[in-house]
Amino acid sequence: MIYVISGPSGCGKSTLIRQVLAGLEGVRFSVSHTTREKREAEVEGKDYYFVSQDRFLRLVEKDSFVEWAVVHGAFYGTSRRELTKDRNQDVILDIDVQGAAQVRKKIETAVLIFVLPPSFRELRKRIEKRGLDSALAVRKRLATARKEVRSYTVFDYVVVNDDLETAGRELESILRCRRARLAARQKSLGPILRSFRGKG
Amino acid sequence: MIYVISGPSGCGKSTLIRQVLAGLEGVRFSVSHTTREKREAEVEGKDYYFVSQDRFLRLVEKDSFVEWAVVHGAFYGTSRRELTKDRNQDVILDIDVQGAAQVRKKIETAVLIFVLPPSFRELRKRIEKRGLDSALAVRKRLATARKEVRSYTVFDYVVVNDDLETAGRELESILRCRRARLAARQKSLGPILRSFRGKG
Repeated sequence: MIYVISGPSGCGKSTLIRQVLAGLEGVRFSVSHTTREKREAEVEGKDYYFVSQDRFLRLVEKDSFVEWAVVHGAFYGTSRRELTKDRNQDVILDIDVQGAAQVRKKIETAVLIFVLPPSFRELRKRIEKRGLDSALAVRKRLATARKEVRSYTVFDYVVVNDDLETAGRELESILRCRRARLAARQKSLGPILRSFRGKG
Repeated sequence: MIYVISGPSGCGKSTLIRQVLAGLEGVRFSVSHTTREKREAEVEGKDYYFVSQDRFLRLVEKDSFVEWAVVHGAFYGTSRRELTKDRNQDVILDIDVQGAAQVRKKIETAVLIFVLPPSFRELRKRIEKRGLDSALAVRKRLATARKEVRSYTVFDYVVVNDDLETAGRELESILRCRRARLAARQKSLGPILRSFRGKG
């Protein structure tokens, strides 16, 4: 099962995803390719595959990406290989709204989750507090956020990240719940159902 | 939102439901009417409304039930009033498979959850250990269980109650997850979305 998690930059997506990955088995993180610069805390191959723009465009030409997009001047993409390399696990994609829409079109069964801050004002506060961006960059992020939020109707679920713990539990619940769906469980039910066969 | 929870007698439904009611806000238990005898631990008006067969049949004639069924010689039913008396809360129905199928027909949006023991053998063990039934009654329960299990395909979700804590968390996840669905959340999103409107 593929889970796409999107939301305005600064909404707390990455933290929530880390929480889910820590609390739940059988789920992995899809590492995206990007041309943006590595931040200090980030690890190559774990947070992103950091590549040059040339390399990225060659991958686009080879149709190596399930989705790709330009966000704040940098390229981001999910390679097909990243999704297919382990089919026994659920996979979480942390991608932007444009990417989410592309995944929806290509993979009908993907589950799309939108993470929202409790308000625009709170989002601005969080982005400013994070201190990663210049005043200009903050303004750009907020302008993008306004645009992205308008696309909320393409998503299946909306998680409001007011309190990290509550929002994390809710995100985890979505994964647990999808695993309990009849269609998802049918295979593992075989032995149980067979044990019920027989004369009353 | 209406949640119907069914499963063979002895699968641990009641305990799981108690866990969910204790761990989650905004959800209440739908108290059924029954003509069966009250067990010692049960409380009138909390576990069931215990009524005579005459009274039950009069309620059937007045079309007071959303669903009703005969299980092991006793009548069980969910009154319409029980479902409509508080529309601000989710409601959990603990009813048998026949009742679940009736609810599905009348209330399309109801969420149907089937609880299964890990195996038939384990179910028998649990029912015998509970010590509530005669040998004959145990055999009847098991025969009913075999029949009920065949109806699993009408359900939306299947929870296997191997470990109580895991199964309880899974059941709770289903409720949390349904609340996060876009359609369920749309109303509460209004103020957040409005806060994002404005010039970039």
